[in-house]
Amino acid sequence: MAAELTAHQLIAQHRPTLDQALEAIRTRAYWSPHPEHPKAYGEDGSLDLAAGKAAFDAVLNTRLDLDQPGTDDWVGGEVSPYGIALGVTYPHADVDVLLPAMKAGQGAWRDAGAEVRAMVCLEILKRISGRTHEFAHAVMHTSGQAFMMAFQAGGPHAQDRGLEAVAYAYAEQVRTPGTAEWSKPQGKRDPLALTKEFTPVPRGIALLVGCNTFPTWNGYPGLFASLATGNAVLVKPHPRAVLPLALSVSVAREVLTEAGFDPNLVALAAERPGEGIAKTLATRPEIRIIDYTGSTSFGDWLEANARQAQVYTEKAGVNTVIVESTDNYKGMLSNLAFALSLYSGQMCTTPQNLLIPRDGIRTEEGHKSYDEVVTGLAAAVGGLLGDDARANGLLGAIVNPDVKARLEAAAGLGEVALASREIVNPDFPEAVVRTPVLVKLDGARKYWDGADSDAAYMSECFGPVSFAVAVDSAADAVDLLRRTIRDKGAMTVGAYTTDPEFEQGIQEACLEECAQLSLNLTGGVYVNQTAAFSDFHGSGGNPAANAALCDGAFVANRFRVVEVRRQA
Amino acid sequence: MAAELTAHQLIAQHRPTLDQALEAIRTRAYWSPHPEHPKAYGEDGSLDLAAGKAAFDAVLNTRLDLDQPGTDDWVGGEVSPYGIALGVTYPHADVDVLLPAMKAGQGAWRDAGAEVRAMVCLEILKRISGRTHEFAHAVMHTSGQAFMMAFQAGGPHAQDRGLEAVAYAYAEQVRTPGTAEWSKPQGKRDPLALTKEFTPVPRGIALLVGCNTFPTWNGYPGLFASLATGNAVLVKPHPRAVLPLALSVSVAREVLTEAGFDPNLVALAAERPGEGIAKTLATRPEIRIIDYTGSTSFGDWLEANARQAQVYTEKAGVNTVIVESTDNYKGMLSNLAFALSLYSGQMCTTPQNLLIPRDGIRTEEGHKSYDEVVTGLAAAVGGLLGDDARANGLLGAIVNPDVKARLEAAAGLGEVALASREIVNPDFPEAVVRTPVLVKLDGARKYWDGADSDAAYMSECFGPVSFAVAVDSAADAVDLLRRTIRDKGAMTVGAYTTDPEFEQGIQEACLEECAQLSLNLTGGVYVNQTAAFSDFHGSGGNPAANAALCDGAFVANRFRVVEVRRQA
Repeated sequence: MAAELTAHQLIAQHRPTLDQALEAIRTRAYWSPHPEHPKAYGEDGSLDLAAGKAAFDAVLNTRLDLDQPGTDDWVGGEVSPYGIALGVTYPHADVDVLLPAMKAGQGAWRDAGAEVRAMVCLEILKRISGRTHEFAHAVMHTSGQAFMMAFQAGGPHAQDRGLEAVAYAYAEQVRTPGTAEWSKPQGKRDPLALTKEFTPVPRGIALLVGCNTFPTWNGYPGLFASLATGNAVLVKPHPRAVLPLALSVSVAREVLTEAGFDPNLVALAAERPGEGIAKTLATRPEIRIIDYTGSTSFGDWLEANARQAQVYTEKAGVNTVIVESTDNYKGMLSNLAFALSLYSGQMCTTPQNLLIPRDGIRTEEGHKSYDEVVTGLAAAVGGLLGDDARANGLLGAIVNPDVKARLEAAAGLGEVALASREIVNPDFPEAVVRTPVLVKLDGARKYWDGADSDAAYMSECFGPVSFAVAVDSAADAVDLLRRTIRDKGAMTVGAYTTDPEFEQGIQEACLEECAQLSLNLTGGVYVNQTAAFSDFHGSGGNPAANAALCDGAFVANRFRVVEVRRQA
Repeated sequence: MAAELTAHQLIAQHRPTLDQALEAIRTRAYWSPHPEHPKAYGEDGSLDLAAGKAAFDAVLNTRLDLDQPGTDDWVGGEVSPYGIALGVTYPHADVDVLLPAMKAGQGAWRDAGAEVRAMVCLEILKRISGRTHEFAHAVMHTSGQAFMMAFQAGGPHAQDRGLEAVAYAYAEQVRTPGTAEWSKPQGKRDPLALTKEFTPVPRGIALLVGCNTFPTWNGYPGLFASLATGNAVLVKPHPRAVLPLALSVSVAREVLTEAGFDPNLVALAAERPGEGIAKTLATRPEIRIIDYTGSTSFGDWLEANARQAQVYTEKAGVNTVIVESTDNYKGMLSNLAFALSLYSGQMCTTPQNLLIPRDGIRTEEGHKSYDEVVTGLAAAVGGLLGDDARANGLLGAIVNPDVKARLEAAAGLGEVALASREIVNPDFPEAVVRTPVLVKLDGARKYWDGADSDAAYMSECFGPVSFAVAVDSAADAVDLLRRTIRDKGAMTVGAYTTDPEFEQGIQEACLEECAQLSLNLTGGVYVNQTAAFSDFHGSGGNPAANAALCDGAFVANRFRVVEVRRQA
């Protein structure tokens, strides 16, 4: 079959983008080729707001036929957190047919080489980018994110993370040259001479286990890192968030076909309710790489049981912000209020524990007692979310009943400094919309310094729940931070301090316990947001995640290099 | 304490070497800063032959006091395969004291940064290089390698592999800049601006579990990769091969001290007979990285149980050479004879299974039957080892009674084409010196194509044992090769063929099954030898080893990058 997209065309179109991405991960300056503003779309064949909505509406209540081999049934039952039953059905795979079919095209994909693979990946991302408005609705109606967040985090930011993974994968593969002439002097005799060929080879089939809250953002790094390194990729979405990844798979198969490769290099594994197909797939011998985002318990299970695979997990952590002092009290409170509110705190990066000395903090407005700080923060959240329309735009919807139950239970854990408020979304009256609850807890050392602390703040309480933890001293806050990272993991750490020595102590704690630290954020950057090409998401060095997005370690072991040497 | 070796001095002396190493791993052309010829030593403070021997003799029957904290006893009982009791005792550690002491200096080591760490590692290697003659005796009298091999493989080649690991570790750490300014445009508003700091941080304490046969060659990559990435390293040598690694630890501690760092960043864990300390150490929470070379069973145990650590294993494989055709029959036979004989076949890279079509092969001398090829190979080995002095220089000594027992049992597995011969080493009459045995086996497909083949050639028979396996066809040889790699792993694959199509088929098999291939070697390069900076040792993609020496994957996950960001 003659490819519609030749390598030459792909390189001409995408190589400059790859080179910019390679430069960005080297300098870690700001860069993105994917516009964040909804109005930026509609040119160059991309879907504008109306066309994106129409495309989303057109897919509802249809069968998304990906033309996959081994399809033995059609499954699906997604109900949007906003109340809409999506009505989309997806292929259910007979994996004994699908997995062998996915291997068939791997030889040609391997032989295409690192550059062409990267170019194909960039074409996939470009087409996804052109459908960002459509994907935004798909992400919104599976994750419960508000539209603007679904648009940005599920669109350009996710595409950035995918491109970043492609750049890392490409760079890693070309560190070793394709060929080398080796000539070793032998004194007066002729040198020993060998011709060597080096080929990056895939590990096998990669399994992507998607999550409910960020199907594209957390899915694209593993998907593209594995594909760019020559592996076939089987995408197993969360049963409540199939559509965004199914559409991604559809685009990937379309581009692979047009570029002359086997579309089965990327396939979808949707499942019946309660089928729990991830466990079955994860231990299949064909699966040699797994990327997973989700609960600690299943992440731990994968690490323990999927021994035939490289397993990259992002699990749960307990994120801490230490409030020791500030020279911008209002800026601190409003920054924190936003971080606690965004997507109803349903981000793995949302702060949970705010450690505040019980005798208060220094600010440019003078001393503030613990109670004043907590009251101030409650007021800041209340102000931010006081207008229901604005609140709906920030909070989105509660993603599932478990989160709602946790939120409701949290009020019983301590004194409620800010009660959760129910908000009606006029466009989607069935959506469960809640403002965050802020609960005061006593963080005296005696409550957490034992061997097995059962303090509420020592467990992750995923959702719009934060704890204002009164600690005995600022030094205790650092000790509790260390202990929390070490025992529970952390995706993010934040701190506010004007004391250089104290700041140094927090930095040392984060370096030793291996957690990413944001200091004194008071403006438009938030502790729970990272930017691809510049910020690392997670550290890979504490229990919250065994990998970071994105670095060399995330890609280096997805392929191996085979050397063929012969006498020259 | 003022450092005797300043960073400035170290950089001035070693940075050019590091830069050359970085260039070599990029081009993979021949390069080494460590001379292979014994006569090259003796200048610049390095020990010459006589001084090296004297230094080795001086350490015999002494206590090697490394001045380590928590030393609760002195242990040692090495007996050379050449019959000498070394009489050296080493510190036995109370690990509850030693491990915390090893962490004490990690902050300063981390803060020194990637370049200074690399320079300190290069200084360690330089001092080891200067004592190559002394190390050669230590390697010879623990591994049983003949002197010349112990000198080269245990000296410059091991040092090359250590330096290669340092180069990879350095390159990996500097891929992310130390600092970055990030500025994101916000339309008409001021850009969002952050200052970011990125610090490579160690995982913790690394454990090196050394092997009996190549204590330095297999030990240095992990040791230096971990140290260069900021980790402290605890060296647990094989009880029969302590001295080479104990001397290495001694040099490392000396250099660390002189450079102003804590010597406890590198420590030795020698053990009492039967203590089995590796299992205890490997599951300690402080141990976050493990490098291991040895049996498959313990390697598998480590991978399954040392879950808190990154585990890099080189285990056992079954190495195959396919003989399909050749245009240099004598060259092929003599090349293979050398590969089978070197160090009595006690290399993880020695070919075991020689797959030969039962109806013979094409050569430039005409058709050769299976029996002719086997007889020819037997004659080549016999000729190579016909002179006892030369045989002693090639074979070395049998490293332990297990290898001798396997060798003796092998003669019962099939028709013996070449019997093992006992050779006396006049210098060391107690040494067990044996020539290889070559056994003919029937490799008809019916004997290996079942689910659980118990054919002798499907198990590793470590030592001077090779099987001339008669296969039904050349195509079957490739199928058996694939099956052997997939089920048993392979460190090396060799093949002889003049048929481009057949060659292509073998290459495809090696690419798909992930094994390193040497084609048509007939000169002075052997399938069981690799050169640092150019050849990969193992692939990391088949059951013989989960890592290769050396690549990005070998170093990338030994450290993590912690980011600290603050508003600009």
